[in-house]
Amino acid sequence: MSRFVVHYRIFASSFDEAAERAAGIALEQTVEVPRDVVPHGYVEDEILGRVESLTTECSGQYLARISYSPDSVGTELPQLLNVVFGNSSIQKGIKVIGLDLGKTLSERFPGARFGVKGVRERANRPAGGLICPVIKPQGCDADTLAEIAYRCALAGADVIKDDHGLTDQAMAPFKTRCEKISSAVARANRETGGSCLYLPNLAGRTEDFVDFARFAKDCGAGGVLVLPGLFGFDLIRRLAADEAFDLPIMAHPSFLGSYVLSDTLGFTHAMMFGVLQRLAGADIAIFPNVGGRFGFSETECLAIARACRDPSGVGKPIFPSPGGGTSVERAGEMKRMYGDDVVFLLGGSLLRYGRHIGEAIVAMRQALAAG
Amino acid sequence: MSRFVVHYRIFASSFDEAAERAAGIALEQTVEVPRDVVPHGYVEDEILGRVESLTTECSGQYLARISYSPDSVGTELPQLLNVVFGNSSIQKGIKVIGLDLGKTLSERFPGARFGVKGVRERANRPAGGLICPVIKPQGCDADTLAEIAYRCALAGADVIKDDHGLTDQAMAPFKTRCEKISSAVARANRETGGSCLYLPNLAGRTEDFVDFARFAKDCGAGGVLVLPGLFGFDLIRRLAADEAFDLPIMAHPSFLGSYVLSDTLGFTHAMMFGVLQRLAGADIAIFPNVGGRFGFSETECLAIARACRDPSGVGKPIFPSPGGGTSVERAGEMKRMYGDDVVFLLGGSLLRYGRHIGEAIVAMRQALAAG
Repeated sequence: MSRFVVHYRIFASSFDEAAERAAGIALEQTVEVPRDVVPHGYVEDEILGRVESLTTECSGQYLARISYSPDSVGTELPQLLNVVFGNSSIQKGIKVIGLDLGKTLSERFPGARFGVKGVRERANRPAGGLICPVIKPQGCDADTLAEIAYRCALAGADVIKDDHGLTDQAMAPFKTRCEKISSAVARANRETGGSCLYLPNLAGRTEDFVDFARFAKDCGAGGVLVLPGLFGFDLIRRLAADEAFDLPIMAHPSFLGSYVLSDTLGFTHAMMFGVLQRLAGADIAIFPNVGGRFGFSETECLAIARACRDPSGVGKPIFPSPGGGTSVERAGEMKRMYGDDVVFLLGGSLLRYGRHIGEAIVAMRQALAAG
Repeated sequence: MSRFVVHYRIFASSFDEAAERAAGIALEQTVEVPRDVVPHGYVEDEILGRVESLTTECSGQYLARISYSPDSVGTELPQLLNVVFGNSSIQKGIKVIGLDLGKTLSERFPGARFGVKGVRERANRPAGGLICPVIKPQGCDADTLAEIAYRCALAGADVIKDDHGLTDQAMAPFKTRCEKISSAVARANRETGGSCLYLPNLAGRTEDFVDFARFAKDCGAGGVLVLPGLFGFDLIRRLAADEAFDLPIMAHPSFLGSYVLSDTLGFTHAMMFGVLQRLAGADIAIFPNVGGRFGFSETECLAIARACRDPSGVGKPIFPSPGGGTSVERAGEMKRMYGDDVVFLLGGSLLRYGRHIGEAIVAMRQALAAG
């Protein structure tokens, strides 16, 4: 059984203090008792976290590699996250910057069902960037939203996703919306011979998920959108593991910002929007694009894209999906920056095209082909 | 229908910039399209967020009160959190500091089933602080853990909770542990005539919850521990709303630290560990105590306790439960600080008492009575 290793950046005033804090993390994340009362034998030898190395990154900043037993985790994703960063999330000056899953946990957490290759097959887009318009705004009825989706699919969108704010509200309840948009996209696909995938937002109350997921599948939805920040990463894991469900999963970053925005807290951008999404089993990971209204840097965005596509990462490589400030005008620049294995989100600015929204999709395709 | 109001602290270089950012939040959290393409009529008049006021708190720091429609939320807690802070969590310099639920949403989100009064009745402790030892460490078998629980219950503990790292691992699987500890605590209760409540950690895989919750109830567990940071706040809401379940819920802060530790991001301590817990329906909210290993200040801890017990808050007042660095030695100080409506967690330091762990519980009771 091979231990897994978490890389923590520790902010401390000296190497000795960093060493003390690393030893504290090893206790906190496993036995959570003072060192002197850790029971001898199995608990001390196997369960207790182990500081494998501690190095100085620069003044005040240290890198601790701490290993844990797969026995601490069992087979549960939430418990893996609990060991990685549960209580340590509440201590200042600790940032999770890496994870080596090891052989044992790699078998327990196989990652994405589809990944880049599988999603390309389903969308019948063997090469080039995928185009994904977002259906919105909240407050419109299902017929209005379905009409927008139809025009986008007809114009050659690869994926169409619900806005993450469309859940089960009275204006366009999940089942009504899912049925109408699925059937509008299916109609467009019949007309074009295309394979546009519609991804409804699988949100609502916890007790609705199983029913909603089955309903989406039965409607002919091409996948689902999931918000792990609000519903937990385990919902993605559960859907990805479900052989009867068997649809791609796109993860949205809502409510997750606080984990990445501080330099000395939480996770790196690549860990949160790349590694954790792959670990859970997402096939497409949305994140805020550089130059939009969210303030991620080019370096941070590229690190996310690398983490999503790294062949040596958890499970299959997945699609990074930059959104927010993405537009037809920026298509060439984005293609040069991210390459081809990308799902480009097109959001609210699309609505400016009104009934001619399809023209934006066509223009985006041309720009990606030329870029 | 009354709108609900979220209070955001915005960090900006001028009042004009703050005003622009506030207007941006109102768009982002609802329609998520540029202002000029918001559809006229219902979407613009009702759904679009409204900046009700903007005031200067001090240089560089502004308070925006933004109102939203209950229609944006529907009846779902995750969607309420999504409107409060979903995408805005990904923008720097925004902190949620208050929430006025309004009449409409107060009816949709009734809060705790038990609260302070109901938990006191179940634990048969009409006055004074409640004592809650934590059963650990991870790696021990269920018999060892049950023996610790038995000794604590026999000595007069009011509540006994699983360590949050005990989930469904092979060393002490959920059902085995739940059964053995429930029956050990029941035996102690028969011997003392007491009403000690055992709260197993309701964790595992998403698909296990319903089964595990029912199993805990059938075993005679006195409540459950839930980790909303890993499983979502909606799990608490679901359990609190379940009339057949009908047991108190204790919420643990694991994985939630990144939301509160930065001054310019996330939520205030009182919002996260008081208001959101009440909104979800927790009866007892655990948070890291001042003076322990987590670095919360006395002011932050008292703000949490106030938010938990404020008679004008969401639903029933609930128990604040400081843990981490709590000990028999600090009982008097903690009683003076927090008062009587508190569940005092006693963690790993208890294990120092070994077979005499009951003496620590007795000493804690005496210290609280004297303090």
